[in-house]
Amino acid sequence: MNVPLDNLRIDIDRLMSRIRRLGAVGALDGGGVCRLALSDADRQGRDLVVEWMRELGMDVHIDGIGNVIAVRPGSEEGPPVMTGSHIDTVRTGGLYDGNLGVLAGLEVISVLNDAGIQTRRPLSVAFFTNEEGARFAPDMMGSLVFQGDMTMSAALDVEGIEGSTVSQCLDEIGYRGTLVTGGKFPVHAFVELHIEQGPVLEEKNIPIGAVEGVQGISWMEYTIIGTSNHAGTTPMRLRHDAGYVAAETIAFVRRLAGEFGGDQVATVGSIAVKPNLVNVVPNKVVFTVDLRNTDEALLQKAEAQTQAFITATAGDEGCDVSFRKLARFEPVAFDLDMISRVEAAARDLDLSVRRMPSGAGHDAQILARMCPSGMIFVPSVGGISHNITEHTDQKHIEDGANVLLRILWDLASQERAKS
Amino acid sequence: MNVPLDNLRIDIDRLMSRIRRLGAVGALDGGGVCRLALSDADRQGRDLVVEWMRELGMDVHIDGIGNVIAVRPGSEEGPPVMTGSHIDTVRTGGLYDGNLGVLAGLEVISVLNDAGIQTRRPLSVAFFTNEEGARFAPDMMGSLVFQGDMTMSAALDVEGIEGSTVSQCLDEIGYRGTLVTGGKFPVHAFVELHIEQGPVLEEKNIPIGAVEGVQGISWMEYTIIGTSNHAGTTPMRLRHDAGYVAAETIAFVRRLAGEFGGDQVATVGSIAVKPNLVNVVPNKVVFTVDLRNTDEALLQKAEAQTQAFITATAGDEGCDVSFRKLARFEPVAFDLDMISRVEAAARDLDLSVRRMPSGAGHDAQILARMCPSGMIFVPSVGGISHNITEHTDQKHIEDGANVLLRILWDLASQERAKS
Repeated sequence: MNVPLDNLRIDIDRLMSRIRRLGAVGALDGGGVCRLALSDADRQGRDLVVEWMRELGMDVHIDGIGNVIAVRPGSEEGPPVMTGSHIDTVRTGGLYDGNLGVLAGLEVISVLNDAGIQTRRPLSVAFFTNEEGARFAPDMMGSLVFQGDMTMSAALDVEGIEGSTVSQCLDEIGYRGTLVTGGKFPVHAFVELHIEQGPVLEEKNIPIGAVEGVQGISWMEYTIIGTSNHAGTTPMRLRHDAGYVAAETIAFVRRLAGEFGGDQVATVGSIAVKPNLVNVVPNKVVFTVDLRNTDEALLQKAEAQTQAFITATAGDEGCDVSFRKLARFEPVAFDLDMISRVEAAARDLDLSVRRMPSGAGHDAQILARMCPSGMIFVPSVGGISHNITEHTDQKHIEDGANVLLRILWDLASQERAKS
Repeated sequence: MNVPLDNLRIDIDRLMSRIRRLGAVGALDGGGVCRLALSDADRQGRDLVVEWMRELGMDVHIDGIGNVIAVRPGSEEGPPVMTGSHIDTVRTGGLYDGNLGVLAGLEVISVLNDAGIQTRRPLSVAFFTNEEGARFAPDMMGSLVFQGDMTMSAALDVEGIEGSTVSQCLDEIGYRGTLVTGGKFPVHAFVELHIEQGPVLEEKNIPIGAVEGVQGISWMEYTIIGTSNHAGTTPMRLRHDAGYVAAETIAFVRRLAGEFGGDQVATVGSIAVKPNLVNVVPNKVVFTVDLRNTDEALLQKAEAQTQAFITATAGDEGCDVSFRKLARFEPVAFDLDMISRVEAAARDLDLSVRRMPSGAGHDAQILARMCPSGMIFVPSVGGISHNITEHTDQKHIEDGANVLLRILWDLASQERAKS
């Protein structure tokens, strides 16, 4: 097959139209969208995307956790080259997070259909259930079940924030399918187009990110117990101020991130103070520390230094410390060949490209456990995501989808990739 | 009159019995008491104390805000020497805060009655309405109206936390009286016995504090506005972290108090973080700064330095700052003669004594605007107050009440005080 690839381009108007039509399902006043996983809005969104998949002639399969896997046959049998993402959103989600990856996949299929091109390998566009984790924990649930590291029964039993289980909600929306996955559905390679959800590409004025991997995440919750005392009558030297220990820790993790440099980030996002009165020294503060790094050894070092600092500072202040691990994921490194393919595709299109880590979790990091996987990032205006003002310029969406087109075509049509 | 003062001592059993009986009114499970101002429990407590006042032969007067002024005639007419405090409590109050000062006053009257002693000046024991401010703002309302700096009509119109006005509640409990006060009821001198509500006397093992004055108080609420960003995808250098600004401020005010030394205290007691999620950089933090000093010039310096620090730190972080004054009281200096009287009385009783400021507000600071006023402090175990575990050792209550007895006797019997 000798396909005039260099002339193939995605149709941005068609892609934007699908993005807007899907964004209208569960639309929020003022913009943005709320389609929590397995909600009625999610069902409506699923129905729409499945309808498009069928219109494109794809075979639509649904597995037991509601993952939707559409397949376009190749000239040969075998595991498909897969793209996709998710269409569930957080409560105040944007139009692009997840949706872009799914709909850009459908746009690639549309382009190939229009050009009358059949690839050698099958192509698949998938959307995975409950990537966000905003209603059911954990996030990336669908891809975890698809890949096999979470059992179907464990996932089905998960209770959501309103008390219903995944199993009940799947039945309610009619998306409990029969496709056998759980590691038994082989995939040749997986590539996911996603908005960056961070400010780096915009700041550097680079349209394409070649994602090297996903940062390791360490979430710890610390509880500092001090002594509640009168703010007027208690001399400074006799205080055991839990708020002070938390404050010094916040300043410490900022310094730590600065000293580590590189991809290290450190955030204290949640702080709860008791009794939280203007004239009472806090006797209890619960706060979280979110540490991330692409390097597991550095992440462990950051964890150890933070813990040592808190222990020492609390000790000096006469406070007790306890802690609880909220989440811990090791860094994920994407396949080097996949990273090179993103770079090559961008260069072929005269788009500047930058290797970068992902600070957020994505389905591709789960798929990476079963097949060569990679990600394409496009810029997020202001780095804003999980917010109704989330936005990516149309030109960047077009660029990202064209990069996706080239990579999918390449992976599906050739025995060995150009690099 | 040649009274054998050196042999006069208060009866600690009788005083403790009254403290316990008053503490049983509005008693809480596990100890402590809840008699919010002008509540039914407050009425019951008032009825009990008024009954004791009448049993002691005192003339009981009530003014328009419900202040209760009991008078024991002297051999001469004229403004009484007054003692007293308050019997309202916070929601989780102790048995001693306020109550001690009123009941020790009654104990002094009991001792003089038993000894058949009439003082030259009249003696008065008073309790003032709503010292705590836990139900109606401001605190020290009764003494402010008594002294004249708050008008009766303004006080009566104050709406409480449940929506009823002071006026309505006074009528409900039957404590709207007719005694004309508002600065028109002259007082020769005022002395108030109170628990320290702080840890200093206990730590120094000193039974009596001669209170020099009340710390000036500055309460500011700062609002820091930053940018809410993803904790994983936002590089440190691109953050505008409102929580970080608050944290550096907490560390700053701790350093400031250390550098100022003396009586300077600084507290950040209340912190509210938005959106308060583990993986989102805080975009809004509202926190309070409570600064206190006995020296107005130093207090102003502390205020200015804190504000300058916050403005600079927020500016460096790319955050906006706004602020709101929650409360501001200048320091109060008690009459030097009254301070000396407390010291002299303690020494006469072989009790060690220490000059100290009050970190909390008291009715005596309001009375100080109309007559020579002073305060006697006794130790609070662990410095704990406004808490059901509030406690003062019986021996310290006895010592404090004996100091009060000597000072009242002295002030009421002599033209000029010994010093």
